[in-house]
Amino acid sequence: MCDAADLTARLIRCPSVTPSEAGALVLLGDLLADAGFQVHRVDRNGTPNLFARWGAKGARSFGFNGHTDVVPPGDLGSWTYPPFSGHTEDGIIWGRGATDMKSGVAAFVTAAIDFVRETPPDGAVILTVTGDEEGPSRDGTTAILDWMEQNGEHMDACIVGEPSNPEVMGEMMKIGRRGSVTFTVTARGVQGHAAYPHKARNPLHALTAYLSDLIAAPLDHGTDHFDPTGLQITSIDCGNPASNVIPESAQAVVNIRFNDLHTAASLEADLTARAARIAQATGVTLTLQAQVSGEAFLTRPGPFVDLVRGVVAQETGRQPVLSTTGGTSDARFIKNHCPVVEFGLVGAYMHQVNERVPVAQVRQLKTIYQRILENYFA
Amino acid sequence: MCDAADLTARLIRCPSVTPSEAGALVLLGDLLADAGFQVHRVDRNGTPNLFARWGAKGARSFGFNGHTDVVPPGDLGSWTYPPFSGHTEDGIIWGRGATDMKSGVAAFVTAAIDFVRETPPDGAVILTVTGDEEGPSRDGTTAILDWMEQNGEHMDACIVGEPSNPEVMGEMMKIGRRGSVTFTVTARGVQGHAAYPHKARNPLHALTAYLSDLIAAPLDHGTDHFDPTGLQITSIDCGNPASNVIPESAQAVVNIRFNDLHTAASLEADLTARAARIAQATGVTLTLQAQVSGEAFLTRPGPFVDLVRGVVAQETGRQPVLSTTGGTSDARFIKNHCPVVEFGLVGAYMHQVNERVPVAQVRQLKTIYQRILENYFA
Ligand SMILES: [Zn+2]
Ligand SMILES: [Zn+2]
Repeated sequence: MCDAADLTARLIRCPSVTPSEAGALVLLGDLLADAGFQVHRVDRNGTPNLFARWGAKGARSFGFNGHTDVVPPGDLGSWTYPPFSGHTEDGIIWGRGATDMKSGVAAFVTAAIDFVRETPPDGAVILTVTGDEEGPSRDGTTAILDWMEQNGEHMDACIVGEPSNPEVMGEMMKIGRRGSVTFTVTARGVQGHAAYPHKARNPLHALTAYLSDLIAAPLDHGTDHFDPTGLQITSIDCGNPASNVIPESAQAVVNIRFNDLHTAASLEADLTARAARIAQATGVTLTLQAQVSGEAFLTRPGPFVDLVRGVVAQETGRQPVLSTTGGTSDARFIKNHCPVVEFGLVGAYMHQVNERVPVAQVRQLKTIYQRILENYFA
Repeated sequence: MCDAADLTARLIRCPSVTPSEAGALVLLGDLLADAGFQVHRVDRNGTPNLFARWGAKGARSFGFNGHTDVVPPGDLGSWTYPPFSGHTEDGIIWGRGATDMKSGVAAFVTAAIDFVRETPPDGAVILTVTGDEEGPSRDGTTAILDWMEQNGEHMDACIVGEPSNPEVMGEMMKIGRRGSVTFTVTARGVQGHAAYPHKARNPLHALTAYLSDLIAAPLDHGTDHFDPTGLQITSIDCGNPASNVIPESAQAVVNIRFNDLHTAASLEADLTARAARIAQATGVTLTLQAQVSGEAFLTRPGPFVDLVRGVVAQETGRQPVLSTTGGTSDARFIKNHCPVVEFGLVGAYMHQVNERVPVAQVRQLKTIYQRILENYFA
């Protein structure tokens, strides 16, 4: 039997900060090939990706999707254990990617290997793992899906193994996601001396007024299947080293997670109109550049959702809520390929310093995935 | 008779970008020694400074202060004539330092030399010239003043020869300056994923709220001799490259030019109290670090101010406004030593490419300084 916790720790030891795969996909590829999977690296433009299938091409198939890339560890001094140590102690695995989502990948890879060995199905199991989910995601899961289409590969249903539970296993699965769009706002004023502000136009004052307006009130209050739209300023940068100089320009980055009341285009129109009002009042130009990560989408409840929900309830004793909360995931690409839901670990420490996961939780997730496969092919 | 314009051009030919004196102080020292001044180099920690006295130590004395260091020339290709050429054509002297303030130094040095030769006073003339006014100013004029105190040297009144006129000669003299203090504000929150803001504490939202509060209303509306206190955000920096991550910390730099209603300490108390309120509301800590460039000060109108004002009016036909506007100057150090006012050239091209000055203006300034000396010792 493959141990999901052990594989998690081994994956954490690969410092696979996007876009480096740092050995993580090589490790998985070798493991899956040994277990009888057909393994293909489907790298595109330098982004590493892995496709693996057990069983015949074209057979009825169940798929999993995940990523091995991780966000940077941040301040190394703040970590109790080095972020790429995979240090395991008192039933806890520590490290960047422990929850998001080397554990999820380890769970479905070990579940799939044990499943095909213990109860070989009349069908195919397909695993898709990308090395770029945290980055631009242009050549990640989309590259795998493009390659699958070109090569006649198909999943009939897919689970994305991202952390889906806020606090305890089994409380939540995802049947859709809010959309996500990122705006880079560039404020351009007139440089000058801090003692003579009337001769300058301070882009930071205009930007502060603009951002203050954006965060002053929520954009909406949520819908039937969706939470309220959320807006986060993720960076403001100017880089002016001289405290007696009013700078010429500054930039802010604003990320919006939006529900089905909005589209990326409607938000861009709203933010552009607000920018025009600030520009009018301050004489500082504010220009927006939008990068759309994904529009809002929903996988409506039905047999596939019920199957996953049933196994989760049986293994955890909890009826998972059908949610659309959280960040974007590669489900936004897969939903164009086949029905997709997301179920994984508790996401408590995602992207934080001292990211960590209980060994027991990783093993429980592996069991859930294996039961889902058994039920699907039963 | 010494020509102030010729000396200006010779000083410009010394490329004395802070902290290099590049021969400028050597040139002045030789000239003053030849004219019967006692000359001392009072360098400190590598910063070059010059002290010169004509007349007996301890006699009633009038002083001048200036600097020969200049800011870097910037893009050389943008200059019509090389910045250290001192090229003179059609009555204009070109070069870095032409207005700020080799011309001012040349004017008071030549005025002092001609004055003591033509009408030797019953008293002393003291010239203090630093090679670091544009830089950190830690070992510049302060070093000269420290040395003077240790050596029983004293000025009874002093003119700083910085450019004081915005557009035409005679329109403005400075009788004080606003203070200047720079606060570096560090916001520290909790890092997290942009889609789960409730698990994070966004330092940029707290910082935006804080800065928005700071710029929402003026800190005061000015006083009898002072403009309103001005506050400029000069940088905001976060450096978060991941638009899906809420950063852990961010910094802002705020420069305040304050009048006599405030001190650096009272402003720090105010800004710290406001920071505490934002911290209370957001859970993001905001810590301030203050760097004081100078407190606000005022040389109250009286006989000395009237003397300078009278000569300027007589020589230019304009009654100079008694102003406290502008950036800091070394007058902020001298005010602890003796009454100090600032009068110099038109500051139009200060710190700019193609800095230049009319020959006639430099000669007029020399005449004004010489008349001030004559009146003071009359
Ligand atoms: Zn993830
Ligand atoms: Zn100057």
